[in-house]
Amino acid sequence: MEIVSFKSILPKYKAVFFDAFGVLKNYKGLIPGIEKTFAYLTENNIQYYIVTNDASRSPQQLAESYHKLGLNVITSDRIISSGMLAKEYLDLKVNSGIVAYLGTENSAHYIESSGLKTLPVSQIDDSNINEVNALVLLDDEGFNWFFDLNKTVNLIRKRTIPAIVANTDNTYPLTKHEVAIAIGGIATMIESIVGKSFIRFGKPDSQMFMFALEQVRFKEPIGKHEILMVGDTLHTDILGGNKFGLDTALVLTGNTRMDEAETKIKSTGIVPTHVCESVIID
Amino acid sequence: MEIVSFKSILPKYKAVFFDAFGVLKNYKGLIPGIEKTFAYLTENNIQYYIVTNDASRSPQQLAESYHKLGLNVITSDRIISSGMLAKEYLDLKVNSGIVAYLGTENSAHYIESSGLKTLPVSQIDDSNINEVNALVLLDDEGFNWFFDLNKTVNLIRKRTIPAIVANTDNTYPLTKHEVAIAIGGIATMIESIVGKSFIRFGKPDSQMFMFALEQVRFKEPIGKHEILMVGDTLHTDILGGNKFGLDTALVLTGNTRMDEAETKIKSTGIVPTHVCESVIID
Amino acid sequence: MEIVSFKSILPKYKAVFFDAFGVLKNYKGLIPGIEKTFAYLTENNIQYYIVTNDASRSPQQLAESYHKLGLNVITSDRIISSGMLAKEYLDLKVNSGIVAYLGTENSAHYIESSGLKTLPVSQIDDSNINEVNALVLLDDEGFNWFFDLNKTVNLIRKRTIPAIVANTDNTYPLTKHEVAIAIGGIATMIESIVGKSFIRFGKPDSQMFMFALEQVRFKEPIGKHEILMVGDTLHTDILGGNKFGLDTALVLTGNTRMDEAETKIKSTGIVPTHVCESVIID
Amino acid sequence: MEIVSFKSILPKYKAVFFDAFGVLKNYKGLIPGIEKTFAYLTENNIQYYIVTNDASRSPQQLAESYHKLGLNVITSDRIISSGMLAKEYLDLKVNSGIVAYLGTENSAHYIESSGLKTLPVSQIDDSNINEVNALVLLDDEGFNWFFDLNKTVNLIRKRTIPAIVANTDNTYPLTKHEVAIAIGGIATMIESIVGKSFIRFGKPDSQMFMFALEQVRFKEPIGKHEILMVGDTLHTDILGGNKFGLDTALVLTGNTRMDEAETKIKSTGIVPTHVCESVIID
Repeated sequence: MEIVSFKSILPKYKAVFFDAFGVLKNYKGLIPGIEKTFAYLTENNIQYYIVTNDASRSPQQLAESYHKLGLNVITSDRIISSGMLAKEYLDLKVNSGIVAYLGTENSAHYIESSGLKTLPVSQIDDSNINEVNALVLLDDEGFNWFFDLNKTVNLIRKRTIPAIVANTDNTYPLTKHEVAIAIGGIATMIESIVGKSFIRFGKPDSQMFMFALEQVRFKEPIGKHEILMVGDTLHTDILGGNKFGLDTALVLTGNTRMDEAETKIKSTGIVPTHVCESVIID
Repeated sequence: MEIVSFKSILPKYKAVFFDAFGVLKNYKGLIPGIEKTFAYLTENNIQYYIVTNDASRSPQQLAESYHKLGLNVITSDRIISSGMLAKEYLDLKVNSGIVAYLGTENSAHYIESSGLKTLPVSQIDDSNINEVNALVLLDDEGFNWFFDLNKTVNLIRKRTIPAIVANTDNTYPLTKHEVAIAIGGIATMIESIVGKSFIRFGKPDSQMFMFALEQVRFKEPIGKHEILMVGDTLHTDILGGNKFGLDTALVLTGNTRMDEAETKIKSTGIVPTHVCESVIID
Repeated sequence: MEIVSFKSILPKYKAVFFDAFGVLKNYKGLIPGIEKTFAYLTENNIQYYIVTNDASRSPQQLAESYHKLGLNVITSDRIISSGMLAKEYLDLKVNSGIVAYLGTENSAHYIESSGLKTLPVSQIDDSNINEVNALVLLDDEGFNWFFDLNKTVNLIRKRTIPAIVANTDNTYPLTKHEVAIAIGGIATMIESIVGKSFIRFGKPDSQMFMFALEQVRFKEPIGKHEILMVGDTLHTDILGGNKFGLDTALVLTGNTRMDEAETKIKSTGIVPTHVCESVIID
Repeated sequence: MEIVSFKSILPKYKAVFFDAFGVLKNYKGLIPGIEKTFAYLTENNIQYYIVTNDASRSPQQLAESYHKLGLNVITSDRIISSGMLAKEYLDLKVNSGIVAYLGTENSAHYIESSGLKTLPVSQIDDSNINEVNALVLLDDEGFNWFFDLNKTVNLIRKRTIPAIVANTDNTYPLTKHEVAIAIGGIATMIESIVGKSFIRFGKPDSQMFMFALEQVRFKEPIGKHEILMVGDTLHTDILGGNKFGLDTALVLTGNTRMDEAETKIKSTGIVPTHVCESVIID
């Protein structure tokens, strides 16, 4: 396994898609020096987008979270989130009634649209259960796990409705050695209990990359072979990028440590085009 | 699918194993008339045992719960619970240190033994984590799901210890139309998140039936073909009984409704020897 | 569950995607009267495409198979096959060396491209195994199952290469009551044995629908809500169409029989927008 | 991870259960020096049994295979095979009709009993399919994979009968670097295709250990803590031994290499009581 510098592979590409967590930032904040990477991309006319499994906030709010950390180049139109896919699904496929959700009020606000009312699972009762036309799992916070997960199981048993999870990750890092259960992990439990499959939006699914590709092509007509997907996780970022036909770069600043990268690549059979220590350009 | 009376099949057997929930009792209490069934078994010298996926209480406490409902014939020596298997495992395989648990204090009390100290997951911290030599999932109550499930995930990531779940059921019935997530369902989520397999005790596993068979043979030398396993669930009671070589009877007072029994048998390929409406003997 | 006529739902749509097997044809040949459906679509300016999980032949050959049956309106540019996705993947991601395959010579011919040589798994040996840069599973015929499946397992264990399966179906119907194991079913076995995930192209994956959508929009700018996906299988056609944001129609001429449709919809939670007996327009 | 000599751990035990392949023998024949190990056990009055996932031959034939290699101490009463469990199941649960099988004639001969006729899947046709009351998967050889696996899938779709697989292994080693697909791996494919669960006999299931324990206790009353299970595979030998309450020793002469043992133990959470290079006693 050869490790190359991120800068050395860039000349080949006209656009770069970045995963967020483990690539641009970690539990401590932004990866130090990240602003130079974006300056370099801008200088060299390379487009960039953030492609992230995150349904807890709107692209605007996600962008603001970068601004607060001092990275102003990440504007909301640069962000492709799995929440956007969930929102598109609801807009197209659910025309009326209530969308029950697990997550914070904030996460629900974003997916609301003209014909739809969102209601936390905790507020579903006999008086409104028959109006519930979809269930969406948005965030692991904002609800009581004991009461609301039990309620969710019974809701899906009673109503034949689509259940959507807008984040395919099982966990997210909290500190260097601790993780937290993500809403994707909770979804796995509910699915196995009720015996139904959720509709999952997020990497490695192609739809995420399609959204990003449309943005890129809106500006200039470039081919898939001119795009690089950068991520820290083999099963989401690299598998998804590979399958969509993009070149891929695995970075070692997040989920995959340097001492385990080669073993993981061999045992999974998921092979990135490049391996880089980080996306930092010195 | 022929439905026969429970009484009509009994002459062939010298011992009967009963599942508890959905067979002897349901969310409303004892199945009305159940005392006549046990009177009939006693009269006809047919041994009986309760074989139950329950780790929330000791056999003594389980027996008392029947006595409170007025069924005094269920004595603690008649009860084979998955909790007994968990206890045997800890006695044989974990000799020292702390057993961390999810469940009520009561459930933990039963599994304690000379060399072992039990501690709820919530009380594990940096000062004692290195003494934790096993994790046991006992009950879905008695802990804070949000804090303690996240803590459990991190405990298993940090310590290479056996994780035991003493109840293989995903849910249990709460009312006629509502279920609750059982500790077995929670275990499934944790397993998929951490990528490790728990040691599961309970039907359909053979060890449950072995324990019961040992009790039976302590009293008289009878063959497997002279024992009937009665249950309401194809995947646990009937599959487990069949695999162990016992005759099996599916009853329709619990998890399997009369209108779906035939379809479920065909689609799963799990075929009971008999199908009865209930275990009631008129 | 209301069953409506296919004709009655068409006015709402500007394009229709059809699954092939179970919708347009079955084991006996074309569904009688199918030519009238296409005549009606043409008259009413509704675009149509065949979206099929088939990697055994090129779109040209697939089109010819319809012509031989007397249906000349199905031209090769109307066909979106999972084989096209596999071919695009190889074009973009595998630049040199040998692509080993399971399938007929014919199936391999289609995926060949400038830099790549295809070779059946049976011809891989110590002299060329290090040049193998991808494995593709194309068809269930054209090879010796015993020798070549064992060889395939060892090939994947020795080489860290992408393994692609261009058909997600487990079986296909052979006669009214018999099925045959499809290459997708074989792939599932190999995956579980080697512990690696194959890259799977085909419905329900979004990439299939994306290809079809691009064709449609090349002719006129229409929205996803103006497109209907028609299929006989809940887990591929309907789930995939729903997830991509299309309206969906389940037909009862293939995998899903009328007497089981409602039960299957409830137990899977995959709900089509419409249910029609067939696509025939009288 | 401490590596200890096999001899040093023996004083604690009154009986040892050995896995066969990877422990006593490998693809080249017996592990050199193995006869000294059995001489030592005999001298020290330690009972020994072979506990093996093998349904291709009778215990008599398995014993003869050791005699041919020069190891005469392995008599048939020392062998506990998963084929014995399959045979007991058929004896107890299938009273009449035909048992269809995949495997060699030899493997079928062993499971035949008074009321039952065995017939290879290839000989099942419309004239006898309704008499088929069980399907047994015995060996990966002795049949045409293409024709007979397809036939097996259709048999299980048509008949609601128990399907038994008497070997839970997915592969077995052929040479130092090559494996072959075992009948357990084939069973996994058929299960996922037909959506039914097979009844699986073999380690890690407790029933294997129960059979062995009964043999041991027939000679002397010893406790589970006085028995050692020795194996080369974490998921079958060690997991099964641990769960049954036995002490376990992982040896590094088969499936688990020395350089990967520690990583595998950590990532699976399956922890042997001891790790030894081999069972050889110098």
